[in-house]
Amino acid sequence: MKQWMASMALLGFAAPALAETPAAVAGRWGLTVERFGVPSYGELLLTQDGERVTGTLSGIAVTGVIAGGAFHLDGKDFSQEPVTGDATVTADRMHGTITMTDGFFGRPTTFTFTAVRAGGPASGPPRRHDFAPTDFHREFSALVAPALVVAPGDTIQTITLDAAGADATGRPRALGGNPQTGPFYVEGALPGDTLVVHVRRLRLNRDYAISDDAIVRRGLDPDLAVQMKDGGKPVRWRLDRTRGLATLERPGEHTGAYAVPVRPMLGCIATAPSPDSGAPSARDSGPYGGNMDFNEIVEGATVYLPVFVPGALLYFGDGHALQGDGEINGNALETSLDVEVSVELVHGSRIMAPRVENDTYIMGMGLAGSIDDAYRAANANLAAWLRRDYHLTPSELAEVMGTAVEYRISEVADRNAGVVAKLSKARLARLSTEIQPPPPSPKGR
Amino acid sequence: MKQWMASMALLGFAAPALAETPAAVAGRWGLTVERFGVPSYGELLLTQDGERVTGTLSGIAVTGVIAGGAFHLDGKDFSQEPVTGDATVTADRMHGTITMTDGFFGRPTTFTFTAVRAGGPASGPPRRHDFAPTDFHREFSALVAPALVVAPGDTIQTITLDAAGADATGRPRALGGNPQTGPFYVEGALPGDTLVVHVRRLRLNRDYAISDDAIVRRGLDPDLAVQMKDGGKPVRWRLDRTRGLATLERPGEHTGAYAVPVRPMLGCIATAPSPDSGAPSARDSGPYGGNMDFNEIVEGATVYLPVFVPGALLYFGDGHALQGDGEINGNALETSLDVEVSVELVHGSRIMAPRVENDTYIMGMGLAGSIDDAYRAANANLAAWLRRDYHLTPSELAEVMGTAVEYRISEVADRNAGVVAKLSKARLARLSTEIQPPPPSPKGR
Amino acid sequence: MKQWMASMALLGFAAPALAETPAAVAGRWGLTVERFGVPSYGELLLTQDGERVTGTLSGIAVTGVIAGGAFHLDGKDFSQEPVTGDATVTADRMHGTITMTDGFFGRPTTFTFTAVRAGGPASGPPRRHDFAPTDFHREFSALVAPALVVAPGDTIQTITLDAAGADATGRPRALGGNPQTGPFYVEGALPGDTLVVHVRRLRLNRDYAISDDAIVRRGLDPDLAVQMKDGGKPVRWRLDRTRGLATLERPGEHTGAYAVPVRPMLGCIATAPSPDSGAPSARDSGPYGGNMDFNEIVEGATVYLPVFVPGALLYFGDGHALQGDGEINGNALETSLDVEVSVELVHGSRIMAPRVENDTYIMGMGLAGSIDDAYRAANANLAAWLRRDYHLTPSELAEVMGTAVEYRISEVADRNAGVVAKLSKARLARLSTEIQPPPPSPKGR
Amino acid sequence: MKQWMASMALLGFAAPALAETPAAVAGRWGLTVERFGVPSYGELLLTQDGERVTGTLSGIAVTGVIAGGAFHLDGKDFSQEPVTGDATVTADRMHGTITMTDGFFGRPTTFTFTAVRAGGPASGPPRRHDFAPTDFHREFSALVAPALVVAPGDTIQTITLDAAGADATGRPRALGGNPQTGPFYVEGALPGDTLVVHVRRLRLNRDYAISDDAIVRRGLDPDLAVQMKDGGKPVRWRLDRTRGLATLERPGEHTGAYAVPVRPMLGCIATAPSPDSGAPSARDSGPYGGNMDFNEIVEGATVYLPVFVPGALLYFGDGHALQGDGEINGNALETSLDVEVSVELVHGSRIMAPRVENDTYIMGMGLAGSIDDAYRAANANLAAWLRRDYHLTPSELAEVMGTAVEYRISEVADRNAGVVAKLSKARLARLSTEIQPPPPSPKGR
Repeated sequence: MKQWMASMALLGFAAPALAETPAAVAGRWGLTVERFGVPSYGELLLTQDGERVTGTLSGIAVTGVIAGGAFHLDGKDFSQEPVTGDATVTADRMHGTITMTDGFFGRPTTFTFTAVRAGGPASGPPRRHDFAPTDFHREFSALVAPALVVAPGDTIQTITLDAAGADATGRPRALGGNPQTGPFYVEGALPGDTLVVHVRRLRLNRDYAISDDAIVRRGLDPDLAVQMKDGGKPVRWRLDRTRGLATLERPGEHTGAYAVPVRPMLGCIATAPSPDSGAPSARDSGPYGGNMDFNEIVEGATVYLPVFVPGALLYFGDGHALQGDGEINGNALETSLDVEVSVELVHGSRIMAPRVENDTYIMGMGLAGSIDDAYRAANANLAAWLRRDYHLTPSELAEVMGTAVEYRISEVADRNAGVVAKLSKARLARLSTEIQPPPPSPKGR
Repeated sequence: MKQWMASMALLGFAAPALAETPAAVAGRWGLTVERFGVPSYGELLLTQDGERVTGTLSGIAVTGVIAGGAFHLDGKDFSQEPVTGDATVTADRMHGTITMTDGFFGRPTTFTFTAVRAGGPASGPPRRHDFAPTDFHREFSALVAPALVVAPGDTIQTITLDAAGADATGRPRALGGNPQTGPFYVEGALPGDTLVVHVRRLRLNRDYAISDDAIVRRGLDPDLAVQMKDGGKPVRWRLDRTRGLATLERPGEHTGAYAVPVRPMLGCIATAPSPDSGAPSARDSGPYGGNMDFNEIVEGATVYLPVFVPGALLYFGDGHALQGDGEINGNALETSLDVEVSVELVHGSRIMAPRVENDTYIMGMGLAGSIDDAYRAANANLAAWLRRDYHLTPSELAEVMGTAVEYRISEVADRNAGVVAKLSKARLARLSTEIQPPPPSPKGR
Repeated sequence: MKQWMASMALLGFAAPALAETPAAVAGRWGLTVERFGVPSYGELLLTQDGERVTGTLSGIAVTGVIAGGAFHLDGKDFSQEPVTGDATVTADRMHGTITMTDGFFGRPTTFTFTAVRAGGPASGPPRRHDFAPTDFHREFSALVAPALVVAPGDTIQTITLDAAGADATGRPRALGGNPQTGPFYVEGALPGDTLVVHVRRLRLNRDYAISDDAIVRRGLDPDLAVQMKDGGKPVRWRLDRTRGLATLERPGEHTGAYAVPVRPMLGCIATAPSPDSGAPSARDSGPYGGNMDFNEIVEGATVYLPVFVPGALLYFGDGHALQGDGEINGNALETSLDVEVSVELVHGSRIMAPRVENDTYIMGMGLAGSIDDAYRAANANLAAWLRRDYHLTPSELAEVMGTAVEYRISEVADRNAGVVAKLSKARLARLSTEIQPPPPSPKGR
Repeated sequence: MKQWMASMALLGFAAPALAETPAAVAGRWGLTVERFGVPSYGELLLTQDGERVTGTLSGIAVTGVIAGGAFHLDGKDFSQEPVTGDATVTADRMHGTITMTDGFFGRPTTFTFTAVRAGGPASGPPRRHDFAPTDFHREFSALVAPALVVAPGDTIQTITLDAAGADATGRPRALGGNPQTGPFYVEGALPGDTLVVHVRRLRLNRDYAISDDAIVRRGLDPDLAVQMKDGGKPVRWRLDRTRGLATLERPGEHTGAYAVPVRPMLGCIATAPSPDSGAPSARDSGPYGGNMDFNEIVEGATVYLPVFVPGALLYFGDGHALQGDGEINGNALETSLDVEVSVELVHGSRIMAPRVENDTYIMGMGLAGSIDDAYRAANANLAAWLRRDYHLTPSELAEVMGTAVEYRISEVADRNAGVVAKLSKARLARLSTEIQPPPPSPKGR
């Protein structure tokens, strides 16, 4: 079975009418439905005219009536099956039941749910959080308690361990496997939103990095496999933070003078996927981002990630002092980092996969089990961006991409390969859009 | 970072000498090392001559001395780094510390460990367990308490839910997503062993199955994608258990007479992977088996799975009334099943991926992110089987596979594609092996 | 540039009117347009009512007027650009000019053309041709003079050299690289038709075959590549024609008793592709068939190939005494063969890729640069077969394939990988089709 | 059969001794062996000490004796099978027979051959050739008569047609399908050499280009396939040669201001492959280069191509005014060009695939049937470059590529996908090589 029921949209609810002043339900609510002990999350957007309520529930149209604190909702899901809900509304909370028909079971099933009113724009000024992590996480889990709650516009200053779990002093602080800093709960984030992460500062905080001398299996044809068969030994690099250069601690005969400018990057950055899908390892990647190992996620870059759970739950880690494309040794120059990011939200934008932006490019990530599939996914991601934000028709899309797209292979070391489809902002500047915003215009406070 | 430290071999330990009768440590021990809260498992095989101990620790050679209950061990890991251990031995248990050098950290680290003496061959006759599951699992987790403890040679009679969580009565019992029956703890199983599962009986226990009318993305070229763009609607099939036929409940114009013989199969069968690697979703597959959707895992088949954790922790579920190759609808004819399996163990056989055997074929599974990669993995799996159990040289291997290998594409619906490399037993019967056993000779009681 | 102009459809023509009895043009004509010295072929199907002519030109609708021997035609191509023709009709021939607008040039271009009336059904009984080849061909070329002209229904009895060019006596007769027997010109075959080749007899005619002990690059993961690095040495097999067994001339330690039943097959069978596309090497494959190395092209099988040029130009060769799936040594058991085939035509069926049929299965070949792409192509090929001949709707197609499709990996040794999508005739027998024919009903005399 | 005999190395020869002054054979000879009407080419490098001759024949060691004009040679091929030759030497020519054992036939076969002394360094100054082509070629054929003979160091000034065959005036001059200018015979080029092509000048010579609005099949996932299903219409671009900008002749609603800087490039550049392998279409690519559509083959770039036949036979064509990565429309901005290239030779360098170099990068092309395979091929190509010219050990190779490699997807439109592995010259400058030459040091006059 693939993944039907598990990713089923959530849908509708309602409640008996009472002869009282109808409760105020207009606005945006985060919804949690409990199905056999597994929470699923949705977004409820309501407008109200006295007892009459209309709106959407995770994208499907619903209508409702409200009588006192009793709220009843009706709608039809994407398969035209009925959805009904009944809830009691108290202040900024609802609780009740929702009945929906699983196409798979073929019969209506009733689950309990709760809803919490989503906060409006934060009232105060952006804050700066100085966060010293104590626990690290080897999975991108939705069920871990947040390490810190932040608001859109806030900045987080913190550190990341290296991929093996060591900190700036070289001390092991967690088991290896890309232990992550976080998760950070972003107030107001609901499924369907986009989390915008500005990488404000990314700096080395120690004088060495560790890598190895293998080439990963995905990079080897049979001849190169034979040549590289003894690869895999650890290799230490010296990081000269003053001059910004990495050199080998024990160079070979031809690499004594070899030096590479450092360019610190985050190997991992993720939101938490829906608990329906389990908690992927911090060595994996997917629509939620994760271990993408893209060497353009550097200081100055902006990363867009889909939100699947309330609060988004931002994780990051696996800092690299520098990395060629694809992380072909399996390890990059693995090191601990000082990190500063700020976060924003775009409501209802529903991107399907991670995106990255810098001063000169917009970039759609494609992550899949082969480079070929990742390539198609990157095209689809960039195409969706151009179609939604630049309103291009299919013909225009083909013309613009055909003349301006650039492709990088960003990841070959992990289960998912990565390809990035890039478009120069110089090209984008010549596209007339109905409204003239920069790509997804993030909403601050 | 790829996965260095996390899958690092575990290695060595020791203890101060006392002027006492040395404790008896000869034999086989299951080892658990605790690293930053994450257990890792290994196998310790020891022989003893008074105070002198020699043996292996998860495959590396170790020597030790034992004085009273104090045990000290030394060895070198695969990178020639020292490993030392010190433990207190009491009856059938040890506890102590192990110090090993992580190639990544570059410095020795000390962890606590415990070891438990592995049971010998079971003394009693094989038992039959009638198991009515109450909890179901959507992940192949090593950290779930066993549902039942069984011994090699035992038989388990139980049921599986359908992929959406419904039982024989159609009642939802768990959230969809291939909820699994188990896990079953097999006494004596340690990492490096192979779990042998004989599928003794696999029978329909209700009169319908559910599928859909899509073709999965991996199966669509651009033209077929356009043709199939409206696919994905649920489709119910009638299961005639008397005649053994599946027919459409609402056939189309050309499928009124269409009937397919049922051939019940298990879509999922797995051991638990090491907790180092996280707990994969029951929709995923890997070296541990999992959601392979191979339509030869039917009554009469034998499945070989690597053991990664003590007790192996066998899971199965996701029954299909029948399925064409690859599960190209994303769903097969999903249904609940009556299941009977018996289990055996092969110690120390260290297979790298799942294998299947029936009366006429040995079959090596290849599971990977593309069909091309799965194809190479299937070759490597079958080649390893032929080389170890049939002692073939590289030339002989090429000659035998070149003349006799058969390939099936077994899975296209999930994250991993599956390819099966098969070799007929009629061909194998003509190969002279030094000893003349059937493939991996499973050990009963 | 991809392949626009080169594969452009040919379209339309015409001629000045004279006050004479209009020439009779009704019927089917084979058309040859000469463009810059490169012939392109088409089919002209006309009906006539006095001076009025209607019909199709390689699939586009045309209308015309005929006055004496002067014929004028008009139509619009698939891009709605005008097409006009003017020809002089004499007996069973036309010659004239055709003017069409190349979407690429963006302006009308005039070319000369000739047309020849296609023969009707052969009048005599099927003939049997005993053909002793003297020339062999290392390309599937449209520009080679036919070795023999045959009619639909005829049988050809001949021989094939082995892949290295040796005949039944072991004598080299041509340079290696799959030298082909043929080409055979099939009367009445025009582009858009399907050539049906029944493999009547396929027999060994010598006592040895040659292969090697490599595994091809596509089959090697990095570990297996290291193990197989010394592979590639020639290996001779003894063919026991009495017992039908192949054994190694110099077996290894474990293969002394190894014997495999022979199952002679044609590694290559092809029509000639359009000269527009060049002449592919006899080691290549494509829509025209070619070096498919599919081990079900044995005695008793029927092969369907698209026709691209007048006469179809059938080639075959590269006999294998037997072969595991995929030809993973790069060579199978290469040998010369006695071959007997009969041919038929299906007019206007326009299949897109080779198909194979035997007593129990219909099989769609997928040929592409990766196994993944070949897999999708095989699906598309089988789906087209089921949709056209069994009239299945998209939903029905998904249901039938989901429950009954079987996949083989047929080729891994050459530039194109091959996958075969098979459907059992037992399943097909339960599909109600409007008319009740076997798949493509071949037309004999 | 794969391709054994056909690519077999050519090997050895000899002649009876006479009591005369031995002919002078020292030096470099181009060898042509005729096998069943198909020429194969090799290189013979000889040194002479009176009657004693030693040297290599296409890479295998040979020894010989020369008596008067009678020359006899002996050697062993790569399978240790004997090779013998007998020739009559007259001035700068040889003719005779060569006997070699085909591993496939398993018995010695004798063929006739001729050899011609390869010219030394040209004596005169480099010349400049102003070449106005009249014939164009749709295949990269070794059997076409050269259009022009040039010497290493010479410069060729000429034009290319657009992919559809139109020239600077828009007039059709050849059938579409990338008609090529050339072939140019480079004096002294023998199989095993590398042809170095400096692209000196590449300029637009008309005011429009033609493309289309499709996205190629390799670029489409199922969703994008549905969105782009109506793509494929011709699109004309205006080329403003003064401002160096391309704009749409008929822009859409959002592309009225869209303008892209032109960057003229050669879609095709190739040497002729060995006639053993047939003549690939000018729409194909391979080790010989061909239709690579790499948008860095612009003015200022240097292209390295392996030489397979005497004279190398350089072809080029398929100019693009500009192109995004991969040529994802199937067509780029197709146009005619003014071209100026100069050529050089590197003897005996035996590169396996095309390479490109510019001021800032060395770039290894990978061309294969999938992006994944092209990726591995690109790695192997760059790795071979770094190992041979920079003498890197496997560990050093991994360290340098891991920290500095960059990947582009260069081609998705044609049968072969293309990936480019790049290394910055800034990184290379820090590698100590034994000798300090730029990559392959081209030999001028």
